[in-house]
Amino acid sequence: MRIKTMDELFVETLKDIYYAEKHIVKALPDMVKKAHGGELKKALENLRSETKEQINRLEKAFEMLDVSPRARKCEAIEGILRESEEDMAAIEDEDVRDAGMIGSAQAIEHYEICRYGTLIEWAKDLGRNDVAALLGQSLEQEKNADKLLTQIARSTTNRLAAGGAAA
Amino acid sequence: MRIKTMDELFVETLKDIYYAEKHIVKALPDMVKKAHGGELKKALENLRSETKEQINRLEKAFEMLDVSPRARKCEAIEGILRESEEDMAAIEDEDVRDAGMIGSAQAIEHYEICRYGTLIEWAKDLGRNDVAALLGQSLEQEKNADKLLTQIARSTTNRLAAGGAAA
Repeated sequence: MRIKTMDELFVETLKDIYYAEKHIVKALPDMVKKAHGGELKKALENLRSETKEQINRLEKAFEMLDVSPRARKCEAIEGILRESEEDMAAIEDEDVRDAGMIGSAQAIEHYEICRYGTLIEWAKDLGRNDVAALLGQSLEQEKNADKLLTQIARSTTNRLAAGGAAA
Repeated sequence: MRIKTMDELFVETLKDIYYAEKHIVKALPDMVKKAHGGELKKALENLRSETKEQINRLEKAFEMLDVSPRARKCEAIEGILRESEEDMAAIEDEDVRDAGMIGSAQAIEHYEICRYGTLIEWAKDLGRNDVAALLGQSLEQEKNADKLLTQIARSTTNRLAAGGAAA
C-alpha cells in the first residue's frame, strides 16, 4: 500500500478507525459481562450502543467521500484490547478488576479521541467541513464517555477504600 | 501473574508505562530522521529528551514504592509504534509523511496521557500524593507536547495546501 496525498492518508486513517470501532464493539460485551459495579456495567453498555452509532457515521463518511467502506488492520487497537483482556483475566478482586477495566476503557477512548481529532483537522484542511462535522459528533461522544469513566473510577476506588482493599 | 489489590494493580500499570516509555525512546530517533519539517524534527527531538526524563521519574517512583523497576510488556504501545512505522514506510511525499507522523506521535502522547492520568488518580487514592505529584510532572509534559504537535500539524497542512498536494 502506497499513500501519496493527504486525501489518501485521510481515507487510510478512516479505514484504521473503522477497523478499531468494529473490534471495540466486539470486545465490549465481554467487558460488560465482567464488570461488577452497576454504574460501570451501564456505562460500558452505553459505550457499545455509541460505538455502533460511530460505525454508522464512518460508513456515512465513506459514502460522502465516494469510497467503499473498508477496514484496515489497526495494530494499535489490537494491542490495547489484548492488554485489556489480559488485565481482566489477571485480576481476582471484583472491585480491583473494575478499576483496571475503567483504565482499559479509557485507553480505548483516548485512542479514538486522538484519531478523530486528527481526522477532523484533516477533513477541514481538505475542505470537507461536512465530514468534519459528522466525525465531530463521534468525538464529542468519546470525550463525554471518557469523563463519565473518570467519575465512575472515583466512586469505584472510594468503594475499595471503604472496603479496605486499597489500604 | 495474579493481581489482587489496588497496590498491585498500580505497580503493574507502572511497569506497563515503563515498558512503553523505554520503547518510545528507542523509536524516536528513526522518527526524527524521517521528519522533513524543521519544527517537527525539533519537537520529536525534544520529545526524546522528555521521554528520558519520564523514564527517570518512573525509576524514582519505583524507588519511592520500594519496588525494583521492571518493565511489563505493553501490547498497546507495541501496536501504536508498529502502526507508526508502517505509515512512515507507506507514505512517499515528505509533507504528507510529516502529517502522518504527527498523527502517530499524538497517538503515542494520548496513550501516555491516559495512563499517567489513571496512575495519578490511583496514587492519590492509595495515599501516595508524593508519587502522584512526581507523575504529574510527566503528565504536564505530555499534554504540552500534544498541544505543540497540534500546532505543527496546522502549519504542515498549510504548507501542503499551499503546495497543492492537499487540494
